[in-house]
Amino acid sequence: MVPSFLAGRWQEPEAPQHAAEVRDAATGEVFARVSAEGLDIAAAVDYARDTGRRNLAPLTFHERALKLKELALHLQEHRDELYELSYRTGATRRDNAVDIDGGISTLFTFSSKGRREMPNAVVLCDGEAEVLSPDGSFLGRHIYTSIPGVAVQINAFNFPVWGMLEKFAPAFIAGIPTLVKPATPTSFLTEACVRLMLDSGILPEGSLQLISGSARDLLDHLDYRDHVAFTGSAATAHSLRSHPHVIEGGIRFSAEADSLNAAILGSDVTTNSPEFSAYIKAVFNEMTSKAGQKCTAIRRAIVPEHLVEQVIEELSQRLADKVVLGDPRERETTMGPLVSAEQRRDVAQAVDTLVTGGGTIVYGGTEEATALSDAFFTPTILHFTDSYAPAVHATEAFGPVVSVLGYHSPEEASSLAALGAGSLVASVITHDPELTSHFAREIAAHHGRLHFLDRDDAATSTGHGSPLPHLVHGGPGRAGGGEELGGIRGVKHYMQRTAIQGSPDHLTAVTGQWHRGARVNKATRAAVTAGSAVHPFRKDLATLNIGDQFASDLRTVELDDISAFAESTGDTFYAHTDEEAAAANPFFPRRVAHGYLLVSWAAGLFVEPAPGPVLANYGLENLRFITPVTYGDSIRVELTAKRITPRLTDDYGEVCWDAALYNQDDELVASYDVLTLVEKSASLYAN
Amino acid sequence: MVPSFLAGRWQEPEAPQHAAEVRDAATGEVFARVSAEGLDIAAAVDYARDTGRRNLAPLTFHERALKLKELALHLQEHRDELYELSYRTGATRRDNAVDIDGGISTLFTFSSKGRREMPNAVVLCDGEAEVLSPDGSFLGRHIYTSIPGVAVQINAFNFPVWGMLEKFAPAFIAGIPTLVKPATPTSFLTEACVRLMLDSGILPEGSLQLISGSARDLLDHLDYRDHVAFTGSAATAHSLRSHPHVIEGGIRFSAEADSLNAAILGSDVTTNSPEFSAYIKAVFNEMTSKAGQKCTAIRRAIVPEHLVEQVIEELSQRLADKVVLGDPRERETTMGPLVSAEQRRDVAQAVDTLVTGGGTIVYGGTEEATALSDAFFTPTILHFTDSYAPAVHATEAFGPVVSVLGYHSPEEASSLAALGAGSLVASVITHDPELTSHFAREIAAHHGRLHFLDRDDAATSTGHGSPLPHLVHGGPGRAGGGEELGGIRGVKHYMQRTAIQGSPDHLTAVTGQWHRGARVNKATRAAVTAGSAVHPFRKDLATLNIGDQFASDLRTVELDDISAFAESTGDTFYAHTDEEAAAANPFFPRRVAHGYLLVSWAAGLFVEPAPGPVLANYGLENLRFITPVTYGDSIRVELTAKRITPRLTDDYGEVCWDAALYNQDDELVASYDVLTLVEKSASLYAN
Repeated sequence: MVPSFLAGRWQEPEAPQHAAEVRDAATGEVFARVSAEGLDIAAAVDYARDTGRRNLAPLTFHERALKLKELALHLQEHRDELYELSYRTGATRRDNAVDIDGGISTLFTFSSKGRREMPNAVVLCDGEAEVLSPDGSFLGRHIYTSIPGVAVQINAFNFPVWGMLEKFAPAFIAGIPTLVKPATPTSFLTEACVRLMLDSGILPEGSLQLISGSARDLLDHLDYRDHVAFTGSAATAHSLRSHPHVIEGGIRFSAEADSLNAAILGSDVTTNSPEFSAYIKAVFNEMTSKAGQKCTAIRRAIVPEHLVEQVIEELSQRLADKVVLGDPRERETTMGPLVSAEQRRDVAQAVDTLVTGGGTIVYGGTEEATALSDAFFTPTILHFTDSYAPAVHATEAFGPVVSVLGYHSPEEASSLAALGAGSLVASVITHDPELTSHFAREIAAHHGRLHFLDRDDAATSTGHGSPLPHLVHGGPGRAGGGEELGGIRGVKHYMQRTAIQGSPDHLTAVTGQWHRGARVNKATRAAVTAGSAVHPFRKDLATLNIGDQFASDLRTVELDDISAFAESTGDTFYAHTDEEAAAANPFFPRRVAHGYLLVSWAAGLFVEPAPGPVLANYGLENLRFITPVTYGDSIRVELTAKRITPRLTDDYGEVCWDAALYNQDDELVASYDVLTLVEKSASLYAN
Repeated sequence: MVPSFLAGRWQEPEAPQHAAEVRDAATGEVFARVSAEGLDIAAAVDYARDTGRRNLAPLTFHERALKLKELALHLQEHRDELYELSYRTGATRRDNAVDIDGGISTLFTFSSKGRREMPNAVVLCDGEAEVLSPDGSFLGRHIYTSIPGVAVQINAFNFPVWGMLEKFAPAFIAGIPTLVKPATPTSFLTEACVRLMLDSGILPEGSLQLISGSARDLLDHLDYRDHVAFTGSAATAHSLRSHPHVIEGGIRFSAEADSLNAAILGSDVTTNSPEFSAYIKAVFNEMTSKAGQKCTAIRRAIVPEHLVEQVIEELSQRLADKVVLGDPRERETTMGPLVSAEQRRDVAQAVDTLVTGGGTIVYGGTEEATALSDAFFTPTILHFTDSYAPAVHATEAFGPVVSVLGYHSPEEASSLAALGAGSLVASVITHDPELTSHFAREIAAHHGRLHFLDRDDAATSTGHGSPLPHLVHGGPGRAGGGEELGGIRGVKHYMQRTAIQGSPDHLTAVTGQWHRGARVNKATRAAVTAGSAVHPFRKDLATLNIGDQFASDLRTVELDDISAFAESTGDTFYAHTDEEAAAANPFFPRRVAHGYLLVSWAAGLFVEPAPGPVLANYGLENLRFITPVTYGDSIRVELTAKRITPRLTDDYGEVCWDAALYNQDDELVASYDVLTLVEKSASLYAN
């Protein structure tokens, strides 16, 4: 019996009336049973909302992200255990790499992105502040905060490890407890992985639960605070989406369903060009990897009509040469069985539908593939002489099956791709920028991902069928209308975006970032010299606060300064060197100071030269020159600690300073963010 | 009969069997009838998808945005006509400003944001490129492209102009044709506004259609390519969301429903503090503006238990002093009727439910308010001694009605606010940063907007009840789960986000922006001097192309240069001036050049000094210092035209240049974007 982990303990139904049997895909042997009968789902949801949330909420994004790395390292150590079990699902060694290593690498990527691209905080800002009143006393800004519920994942059978981890990682960074519901045929592998995660001791209590077996009443316990991410068939997606707690209760529901993904061979490609073989390889890989049981696999090969024959020939040859069906544990096996005999029946039925709908089998077919078990299916190519035959754009054979369609113009190729009515991904193989641009404009809106391939990236591409943690995964229409992953975009799906309006002090309190107009703790040069104020550059992360400010004195720019700067830097642009030409320019009164002079001088005005906790200026953001500075003008700078981000794994962190340059009339001359690295404790280096 | 505008012509049903009557709210007089019987909705959808899309798709975001400004100016000219009609809906002059002027100002804001914050193109990039292969030959990036369908808006009666324009503006910028379905009681006003828009001749044919009257089969004609934005009751939202074309067909559906918005008075506030009167004013305004018929109006006043009595007293006094019920055309009227007698009955019924649920009427009540018509309702305050009474958190009286609830701790106040189960907006009135931060963390995820008020922004706040085009409008749970507006965020709802993978050349072709590694058209100093290449700074927008590059020679940095720069700028930071201290710093080998020296020299290396089409450097973005440069090192720069944005209304545009600084070993030293203004035609200024 595959157990569940709910409300803090492993449990299984005592004497279930119905339990599903799980068979080894290659041998047909029954080795496990699954049932969720009588498990207390309501208690699990409460446990997540109470214990899970209480333990996760206080952790910052960085703290959660770092735990994902620890988890990834732990799973990597135990990778072989998962590989061993995974063979039972029919997966080959190469398939295991996609599911298991792919899952672990998703954890690594989210861990890294969470720490590099998010603040070390619990509130995430979206965009910059909007000034909503002329005097700047009323501002608007958007923030993301964690939804106050549970992240339920309902997964498909084909990626029992990756499918669980790719949903878990963003939810965890968002601070949302997860409840995993795997698909029955491969639930034993998910269970093993969840067990490793729980046993690692890395996860806060309540952040991960597992329901093994069918849980039809799951959505009855959820509401608008919760998020359900579903991967699987369109039919199940529709049934879940019709649930009253989705329709009326406001459950955040996201679906990722199988779709009829296309691979378009560009009309610029000839059989001799490197793109042709790249195309054949891409289609071959998508047919045979996971025996075609991928929601992203290529189902429709859309090729120039005059190349249809060659594509079929080359692809058939490659299948004949390379596919060795067999037990995935055997070294020589290159393609395993489908996950079950039921799945084989479904695929055969879909192929029959395609044939009835106008397709001709030109390679393979529905006959029994091997005597090993009744879950094996031979790779199969169909050809449609009528590229518009409805069956080919609506029937998905979830196995190693592809249909070849000819087209006569790029417009026709885009129309055919769009007939899939919404897909997860399409590949376009072309070396022509015009065609690249054409296909992006015409078919992007029907797809979650477009994969362009040519001689330049054929060797380095991660492949048509591989969703990457960096990029969104999902698609409109038939593909379910959902979106996952995409780096921090994926985290935001587990957070609520809220517009915040208030005074600069309000926004500073809400976001933990200083906003112009909010309270400051000001130090001037005179006060610093007199010892009555501390220069903020003398404060380490333990003592620095947002709002700590250094306000410089004025310094006058002379014509000689401008000329000297032009000469030493070589920047002799006429606006700095030619009085008449400068005055003719629509933006300048006469010769003006270089923008680079202004920011360089500003650094001279705010800097505290002696060694101290500020280690380096590693960059600048959002620099805008607003009012020109001509000779005779003076400038001063206000430098204010705006955002403080201690790093968990270093003895320093990032401090972002708001820099505002003013002239002698208090007009804003330039505005930017100065990015520095500052020590956590001032004693670490030679200070 | 209020006509419809479908498939390019004004039409009305010939002899409708059922037509709804429209009455003047203040007088009760019937003055119009509405019916959509027999209108060909399928043809209208086809017309939008064909004619509308064909005319809108070729326009850039800027071109569409500029048309919104023209439209706003046109409507502003005809504002009085709309005001005149609007009185019939029961709206006062002040209410008209919210609906009509608010709608026009939304057009202005979107016009401005569309041109300032979007590219002058048809593809919108989302985030930066991700390098997906170690050699940089395989990249990923996200783009938004227009959905290939129609934007259907189904509106509420209360904002017949604003409600239509706030949905139209973002859809139009996205390039999506709109089909407007107003609510019957105020459809005549929407019709008048649509007619003005169409008659202006500004809109491309097919970009705006109007269905007056009930159109129950509307969604039958839509699919995953289309977007439906609904505003109105929760019941209608649920019914629309259950439609098979939403559940199975993948219609993009967004709902904004009335919610039980709260206003929390902070526990730091005393009756003498300015926040107390700000609170009373805010609640008063939300009760009386539009006679409380706003989905954002305050329904629950959550106040410290010890202030309950004073709040009720002050609010009652203000209502007694200021509310003059009457015909909105009369000058002295400060509050008009509800939109209809039916609406009045609904509100009275809701008040009864609140009383049955534990509320006590402490001001006003359900008795007839005036003899003018039977649509008037007296402002009403209820008090609940049990703040947790379910009725007050679930019953919405869509009129001038508020319930006062006491609380004992900030935690209790947040819990009470959250009992609304998802709201559009909550106000928090506090001058305490701790309380500000507390409420943001605890209740933001239950709200689409939080409005903080205190002495600093009370005078400049745009108010609790006003959604702004800059900020998102919508909310989770009871509020419908949708999101509108929010500047360009609102435009994106009408676009599909797609991940793009490919070589740098592919991404350049897709996005129209140069990506590092893509083809360049290189000019060196020697080639420029020899006349065999043109420096890109000598090209105006008519001749400049993305990928045009200037590659400089190397220049060596001497210790004297660093010292001189330190002296002239005043930036004597130890890393540039103290050999021993610099070497002790974890990031530097010994004394290094200032980052500001590097970017200043880079400008000297790439600049073309004589007057030419490049007018000014107005800023810098994404500057990162990657490899330190010490004395003896040399630097060179590659400056490549990355993004070109001609302005529609100026004789110049923005050019963003990719700047990459390398050292003598071709290591990347610094990377940034240089922002310049460049003339469209080189002859305009003294070149």
